[in-house]
Amino acid sequence: MSPTTLQPYFAPDTIEARSFAIIDAEVPAPRPFEGGEWEIVRRLIHTSADFDLLNHVVFHPRAVEAGMAALAAGCTVFTDTEMARAGIPVRRMEPLGCTVQCLLNRPDVVAAAKEQGTTRARAAMDAARGLLGGCILAIGNAPTALIRLMEHLESGGPAPALVVGMPVGFVNAAESKAILVEQAGVPFIAIRGRKGGSPLAAATVNALAEMVLRQK
Amino acid sequence: MSPTTLQPYFAPDTIEARSFAIIDAEVPAPRPFEGGEWEIVRRLIHTSADFDLLNHVVFHPRAVEAGMAALAAGCTVFTDTEMARAGIPVRRMEPLGCTVQCLLNRPDVVAAAKEQGTTRARAAMDAARGLLGGCILAIGNAPTALIRLMEHLESGGPAPALVVGMPVGFVNAAESKAILVEQAGVPFIAIRGRKGGSPLAAATVNALAEMVLRQK
Repeated sequence: MSPTTLQPYFAPDTIEARSFAIIDAEVPAPRPFEGGEWEIVRRLIHTSADFDLLNHVVFHPRAVEAGMAALAAGCTVFTDTEMARAGIPVRRMEPLGCTVQCLLNRPDVVAAAKEQGTTRARAAMDAARGLLGGCILAIGNAPTALIRLMEHLESGGPAPALVVGMPVGFVNAAESKAILVEQAGVPFIAIRGRKGGSPLAAATVNALAEMVLRQK
Repeated sequence: MSPTTLQPYFAPDTIEARSFAIIDAEVPAPRPFEGGEWEIVRRLIHTSADFDLLNHVVFHPRAVEAGMAALAAGCTVFTDTEMARAGIPVRRMEPLGCTVQCLLNRPDVVAAAKEQGTTRARAAMDAARGLLGGCILAIGNAPTALIRLMEHLESGGPAPALVVGMPVGFVNAAESKAILVEQAGVPFIAIRGRKGGSPLAAATVNALAEMVLRQK
C-alpha cells in the first residue's frame, strides 16, 4: 500500500455520504434510534467512529422537534468552548439566520472567573443567563457550565429551546448529565456517562441544521 | 441529586489533576505506555473518556523526543482543522514561542480546492508543502490531508519534525494511518483504525507542550 494506491480520491462532497452509508450498513435496522434521532446519532458516530455511543445517547421526546424549530427560527447557538464553535460552520448557520457564540474568552468572563475562583465555563454561563431563552445551548466540555445552567433554571432563569448536554470527562461530567436527563425539565440531547466532547456537541447541532436546511 | 449536591465546585486548576489521578488509578501500572508516552495517552483518555484508545495509540520510537524538541525550538504547529487549532490554547504556545496555523479557510486554499475538485484539507496541505520542515503537523480530521502529506514526502518535500496522525472516520482514515505508521519514515504519534479526531490531535500537542513547559 502506498499513498498512490488510495487514488482516486473520492470527491469531497461524497465522502460524508459514503461514511453515512457505511454506518447505516454496520447498524442495520431495526435500529435503537429512528428518523431525526438516527440522523443525529449517525453523525455522532461519524464524528467519533465510536459505536459505543449507541448505548449512551438519550433524547428528550421533543428534542429533535424543539432543536429544529429553534434553528428554523434563527436562534443563537451558545457553545461552551471555542472548539465546539469552530465545529459548527458558518455555511450551515448563515442560511438559517443563526449565529454561534462562545463567551468563554470575553474579557468580563475571564475577569469574573478569576475573581470568583471558578471556571471560565461557569462564568460564561452566568454571562449568558439572560440570553438563553429560545436558544440552543451546546455543551461539549465543561460540567461546570451544565451544572450552572441547571442552577439558573432552578432559580427561574430563561430556558433554552434545547440543551445539548455532552460534557466529557471524569469529574462531574456523568453526574451533571444525569441531572440534566432526570430533572432539568428542558428538551435535551445528552450522552450519558463519561463520554462526550466538543465535536459531538457540534455534530448534534450540525445534524439538526442539515435537517432544517433540507426542508427549506 | 440536584445541581447543589455537587457543590463545592472543585477549583478549576485541580479538575485536570483529579481527572489524571482517576485515569492513573483505572489503568494501574504496569501500563502499556510509560513516561512521556503515558502522559500523552492519559491526556487522550482525558479528552475522550475512551479507554479503548489504549489499544490503538502507536508511537514512533523518537516521537516524544522529536515533538518536545520542536516545541522547545518554537516551531509552527499546523492543524488540518479550525477545531484542532482552537484546541491548542495560546497560553501553552506563547511561552514556547510557537504558533498554531490552519490554512483550511485561506482564500487561495478554498479557491484551489474548488478548482481541483478536491478537499480543502488536501489543498491546504499543498499550500503548506514548503513550510513543513521542522514543524509539528497535527491531523485530526482529514485522511486526504495525511495522504497528501505522504505524497509530498515521497516526492522529496520537507519533513515535519513530528506528524500527529489522528484522522477519524470511515473513508480512508484507517488506511491513511496505516501508511503513516508503516511507511512514512517520519516521527509520528497515531491512532490506528477509525478513531481519532481534532480534540485528540490537539491534546497530543498540548501534552507535549506541558512536558516542555515543565522543563523550563
